[in-house]
Amino acid sequence: MYFEFSEKVKKLKKELQAFMEEVVYPNEQTYEEQLKQAGSRWQVPPVMEEMKAKAKAAGLWNLFLPDSEYGAGLTNLEYAPLCEIMGRSFIAPEVFNCSAPDTGNMEVLVRYGSEEQKRKWLEPLLKGEIRSCFSMTEPQVASSDATNMQARIERDRDEYVINGRKWWSSGAGDPRCKFAIVMGLSNPDAPKHERHSMIIVPLDTPGVKIKRMLPVFGYDHAPHGHAEIEFNNVRVPAENMIWGEGKGFAIAQGRLGPGRIHHCMRSIGAAERALELMCKRVLNRVAFGKPLAEQGVIREWIADSRIEIEQARLLTLKAAYMMDTVGNKVARKEISMIKVVAPNVALKVLDRAIQAFGAAGVSEDFPLAAHWANQRTLRLADVPDEVHRQAIAKLELKAYS
Amino acid sequence: MYFEFSEKVKKLKKELQAFMEEVVYPNEQTYEEQLKQAGSRWQVPPVMEEMKAKAKAAGLWNLFLPDSEYGAGLTNLEYAPLCEIMGRSFIAPEVFNCSAPDTGNMEVLVRYGSEEQKRKWLEPLLKGEIRSCFSMTEPQVASSDATNMQARIERDRDEYVINGRKWWSSGAGDPRCKFAIVMGLSNPDAPKHERHSMIIVPLDTPGVKIKRMLPVFGYDHAPHGHAEIEFNNVRVPAENMIWGEGKGFAIAQGRLGPGRIHHCMRSIGAAERALELMCKRVLNRVAFGKPLAEQGVIREWIADSRIEIEQARLLTLKAAYMMDTVGNKVARKEISMIKVVAPNVALKVLDRAIQAFGAAGVSEDFPLAAHWANQRTLRLADVPDEVHRQAIAKLELKAYS
Amino acid sequence: MYFEFSEKVKKLKKELQAFMEEVVYPNEQTYEEQLKQAGSRWQVPPVMEEMKAKAKAAGLWNLFLPDSEYGAGLTNLEYAPLCEIMGRSFIAPEVFNCSAPDTGNMEVLVRYGSEEQKRKWLEPLLKGEIRSCFSMTEPQVASSDATNMQARIERDRDEYVINGRKWWSSGAGDPRCKFAIVMGLSNPDAPKHERHSMIIVPLDTPGVKIKRMLPVFGYDHAPHGHAEIEFNNVRVPAENMIWGEGKGFAIAQGRLGPGRIHHCMRSIGAAERALELMCKRVLNRVAFGKPLAEQGVIREWIADSRIEIEQARLLTLKAAYMMDTVGNKVARKEISMIKVVAPNVALKVLDRAIQAFGAAGVSEDFPLAAHWANQRTLRLADVPDEVHRQAIAKLELKAYS
Amino acid sequence: MYFEFSEKVKKLKKELQAFMEEVVYPNEQTYEEQLKQAGSRWQVPPVMEEMKAKAKAAGLWNLFLPDSEYGAGLTNLEYAPLCEIMGRSFIAPEVFNCSAPDTGNMEVLVRYGSEEQKRKWLEPLLKGEIRSCFSMTEPQVASSDATNMQARIERDRDEYVINGRKWWSSGAGDPRCKFAIVMGLSNPDAPKHERHSMIIVPLDTPGVKIKRMLPVFGYDHAPHGHAEIEFNNVRVPAENMIWGEGKGFAIAQGRLGPGRIHHCMRSIGAAERALELMCKRVLNRVAFGKPLAEQGVIREWIADSRIEIEQARLLTLKAAYMMDTVGNKVARKEISMIKVVAPNVALKVLDRAIQAFGAAGVSEDFPLAAHWANQRTLRLADVPDEVHRQAIAKLELKAYS
Repeated sequence: MYFEFSEKVKKLKKELQAFMEEVVYPNEQTYEEQLKQAGSRWQVPPVMEEMKAKAKAAGLWNLFLPDSEYGAGLTNLEYAPLCEIMGRSFIAPEVFNCSAPDTGNMEVLVRYGSEEQKRKWLEPLLKGEIRSCFSMTEPQVASSDATNMQARIERDRDEYVINGRKWWSSGAGDPRCKFAIVMGLSNPDAPKHERHSMIIVPLDTPGVKIKRMLPVFGYDHAPHGHAEIEFNNVRVPAENMIWGEGKGFAIAQGRLGPGRIHHCMRSIGAAERALELMCKRVLNRVAFGKPLAEQGVIREWIADSRIEIEQARLLTLKAAYMMDTVGNKVARKEISMIKVVAPNVALKVLDRAIQAFGAAGVSEDFPLAAHWANQRTLRLADVPDEVHRQAIAKLELKAYS
Repeated sequence: MYFEFSEKVKKLKKELQAFMEEVVYPNEQTYEEQLKQAGSRWQVPPVMEEMKAKAKAAGLWNLFLPDSEYGAGLTNLEYAPLCEIMGRSFIAPEVFNCSAPDTGNMEVLVRYGSEEQKRKWLEPLLKGEIRSCFSMTEPQVASSDATNMQARIERDRDEYVINGRKWWSSGAGDPRCKFAIVMGLSNPDAPKHERHSMIIVPLDTPGVKIKRMLPVFGYDHAPHGHAEIEFNNVRVPAENMIWGEGKGFAIAQGRLGPGRIHHCMRSIGAAERALELMCKRVLNRVAFGKPLAEQGVIREWIADSRIEIEQARLLTLKAAYMMDTVGNKVARKEISMIKVVAPNVALKVLDRAIQAFGAAGVSEDFPLAAHWANQRTLRLADVPDEVHRQAIAKLELKAYS
Repeated sequence: MYFEFSEKVKKLKKELQAFMEEVVYPNEQTYEEQLKQAGSRWQVPPVMEEMKAKAKAAGLWNLFLPDSEYGAGLTNLEYAPLCEIMGRSFIAPEVFNCSAPDTGNMEVLVRYGSEEQKRKWLEPLLKGEIRSCFSMTEPQVASSDATNMQARIERDRDEYVINGRKWWSSGAGDPRCKFAIVMGLSNPDAPKHERHSMIIVPLDTPGVKIKRMLPVFGYDHAPHGHAEIEFNNVRVPAENMIWGEGKGFAIAQGRLGPGRIHHCMRSIGAAERALELMCKRVLNRVAFGKPLAEQGVIREWIADSRIEIEQARLLTLKAAYMMDTVGNKVARKEISMIKVVAPNVALKVLDRAIQAFGAAGVSEDFPLAAHWANQRTLRLADVPDEVHRQAIAKLELKAYS
Repeated sequence: MYFEFSEKVKKLKKELQAFMEEVVYPNEQTYEEQLKQAGSRWQVPPVMEEMKAKAKAAGLWNLFLPDSEYGAGLTNLEYAPLCEIMGRSFIAPEVFNCSAPDTGNMEVLVRYGSEEQKRKWLEPLLKGEIRSCFSMTEPQVASSDATNMQARIERDRDEYVINGRKWWSSGAGDPRCKFAIVMGLSNPDAPKHERHSMIIVPLDTPGVKIKRMLPVFGYDHAPHGHAEIEFNNVRVPAENMIWGEGKGFAIAQGRLGPGRIHHCMRSIGAAERALELMCKRVLNRVAFGKPLAEQGVIREWIADSRIEIEQARLLTLKAAYMMDTVGNKVARKEISMIKVVAPNVALKVLDRAIQAFGAAGVSEDFPLAAHWANQRTLRLADVPDEVHRQAIAKLELKAYS
């Protein structure tokens, strides 16, 4: 048991924090303003590409990728404190080319992609030249049970034909988004978890239609956005199939482990920022003759926030350590646990901060409400809380039966 | 102890429910679409005026006003179940001319307004011809302590001169909004609660400037909206003063009692609608081989929601009964209690419903996320939870000291 | 909707409160001391019979019984505020001959007993001359599902033979306890809810053996107590059968409705007393330079306690009103709701009071810990919380399916 | 970051677990029975001394003491997983001579005792020949603010004279308990935290009177017990003063750090045992046609318990690590955090287990209710939760002011 990071990680943390202070935080407002002033919200604010160039120059790029051939070669545990820092700002993950869903898609391609797929799609993603989305969940069925998925991927000679409706394809609003990884039913007669495949679909393929962009608690999350996409007799070359027919769930398992824990790390970053903002605010606002910071009730909010964040962080780190040492499969109880814990902790801390800020807290003047809405979706995305809890219990009970 | 409503109320309830089914619910979507299609979001969707005309014709108009000279002459207790029903839909309260902040402003004018003020401002409000806003809270100070208010109202011969910055002036985005009731510091040397006044400021007075519309989470709440307004040497005739100099807090007390309980009634309506939507949804979505409605955990959500709503409603009704029988001042513990309870219950029920709906719950396809954001502001508006709790405890302890 | 009690009830309430102040509270300590000083804890402290005589003389006797032939003829709603007051003190319910399980047993005998059973067992119970117990739950099976019950009641000519093991037969420790109503399996081949019967078993019948008295969180609850009883070829005359073979569940339904709500009324009384004790305590203890009552956090405990108690009381009253007006069956959702709410609210309020009292709170110096332990059992007794919640949800969903 | 224990610790853990299985668990019932059968409950069940002899022989003795001259020389972090295991059984800590308050008293004597004090009091404690108690808290004042302490320690030539009333002197019921460390006011005119001293008072000194043994909920915790002690002109030799006059708070700080974290480690052990018992129980009890383990709600209890325990353990270990590496003072935020977390987590897990066990859960048949009552006192002992929370917030806010 050793509760400190290596020198390598401490150094990266310091560099990243400095970059956040110098480049990212000061440009949060600029980013929003450029977005507002553009003719359409579905354009990339120029400041983003400027920040990306600086991050790449500083060597703070693709830190998420444990594969050292392509990325920084950090373990999950080493990446955790860095990812947490990025999670403090909405715009930060993209700056360092570490934002979902591209990170997950890059991991899929690194692990399961063909050489051709890597050349064509992975490389520009790694360079930050294009973006991508992931089309899995569907409006017509309860996606908490992924076997419900109904979109079809059917072989027709040299091609696959895709039909179906997907939503929450996040990132599809970005003009740089060039392809989707689509999951669908390809082998309906196979065993339950071998019926689905994942396939690469360029967004400019005929039959791909973005029906609408979905809001999250009123936020459009432009230019990234969350798309509902119709796939209507969409034909792609057979070589776009990833790994092979029926490998959809196998890939999803590999994709979701790191994806989930990255979300958790960022959740903790969001919670830390909320706590920091709350502390600063209550020291400076006076009501009933004294700073809010001297109210016992507000002190409880601060104490409980600190208590919850510390525990969530430690559990995240332990899960990351297990993923690194015994593998994602053995670590699945820990991954499920932290997937339940982290967004809920972030939501609680953010909610207290909002309350401490008064009406300013629900507005755009501080990142609290936006972070809250984002964290709220994480209780649903990548398997909802209640399904994770059932899985944890099942594993726990197994020891006794 | 008698737990049923009078025949008069039962009849009104029935009529109102029928009107909701026939007119309001079917037009929720129309309203949103008209808003989207308009050149600007700060315009009134035509369907609103159509619905208002129908409601007026049906005698479902100004139900909130206990004063029978101007309104329906219902007691708070009688109005409660009606207001709850209106709370089920965002667009409903305005349809029946029962929406904040106009209701509060009308009450102020009925009780404290001069004959001239009534003629000029109350009458068009009662007819639904104009709208109004209320400018109290300020960005620079903690408004949970209202004595912090700094905007100035100064006498200059026949006029008052207003200077200051207000925000969360809800309704100011509506083109029909013609005046604000502004509260500010007029008599800085008077005793603490006699330093402030309320005055009527037509929004077209020179020096009134809407700086921006504030979002709530990601919602703009157009065309109503929440304005930040700058008052820069704004001059209004002395007769615009309401009741008299230094009466600001006295008026605020009278205004807030009914205002608070109306919010609570609507909160319960929002919670009921969420529970209804959740029940219907879980009966129809299948995961892991059975409808969600057969999952024990989801049944707990439903049971807890029902339990919490029933209690919140009963407490609301008791508070209304006390306001009617012993007055707002004696009932202030009950008003504070329900002001804490109702939005928190609504938030919990809405949150469970969102979870049961999956990602659809955070989108615009159902009114859950929008209701949630609205309820969240009620934990801050009209005195935040934690200040109400301190007030309740103070009253409770008084009995023993 | 009318939130006040009738003059009759107000008068009874006043008399009962006066009696509590003059007779009951001052003797709580005496009762404990007499119990400690007796050779055995399984004897009745003499002060109890003295108090009973006074209560009977004052006309505060058998108030629970709606049947005016035998009892006070109060409705459930009228009894509620009186029962609440009794719930403030552990020793009070017996003083007024309103304590479980005798009340439930008396109700069973009034409704379903033969004339002979009434003469022999009901009359001395009504006079407070004897006591009784109720033997339903069994150690070997999950009693949350009452159909699990395995004890046998078998006809053998003029007699029934009882075999089985029961526990939590509360009251069996009292030397005045003369009989048990035993529920068991008599007709194993009948439909599920017609297999069980209830029968009167005098405790001095050969084969009845009290194996041990069960503690509740360390409390023996002497002289009342909770017995584990072995029934070993126990033979009773056939006329001891209540109503008829297979009527066990029908009787249980009738018995449990009022029984449950009486528990809830007393839970609210216990909560009220805890809140009163907490308020008094925090006004008088000083830490860090000021009375505890001036700590914001402690004020939150007080406010939340008041808020929760008010709501629980209103829901209890509404459930009682429904039992009186539409019957126990239609009111079963409300009964389940309050059965979940009331003990949980009492536990929360008691827990806060314990915390406010410091270590004194867990000791015998105040009734807080003892009340807490008692309330904790109510989350299990008469159907556990989680089973009630499932029942509430089932009823709620029914409206939509 | 490294989440595994050293080989040394793993080996000790294994030995300890084997000893628990072979010696401790099988004798829990024996211990209780010997206690019941003895003439008085204030005698030591013989099986305890037998187990102690075995533990000493196995080298599982005084593991708590980091000072290798006297104890096992384990760091706090190394001791944590061992202490957790001991916490699973009420009788275990004493078996290994690792039970409060002796451990705290031994640490005080190791650090601050004179050679004579060590010879006379520390050595027999280390050997497990005698026991001791700690007299700090007083019935008349709020002990959450320790400066309230009023008992007097006054110099009179070669002696100190002690006057006052202490309670919750745990362990004083044991016939082997030979002395108390008493804290009291010796220098009323000194600065606030230098007014109090700690002194050794043999329990057979004239004027020491045990007034009564205090129950915790209904438990007497015999033969250990919690005493209220009157000190009436008690005279002890001046050399019994520990360290020096006015050093009371300095010693208390040193004493409480490890004491608090030991409690937390044991809390986690208690929680783990509850979770284990719950899992086993629900796999084997059937209701409504299936094992309780298949009920979704019960699975949530299991999942939440596992989630909470994991986090609490990690935070405990981190706090221990910090105590070992940066010292108790720098680690005080972490110590406060875990002191709030661990008992609350244990209470939640125990409460769920009790609920899953039904009425058996509140009885003596399983250790759940007894552990619950014990954990409940830890929210009060060694500074109550709410005071720790204020301290955490103060430290958190310090970073920004």
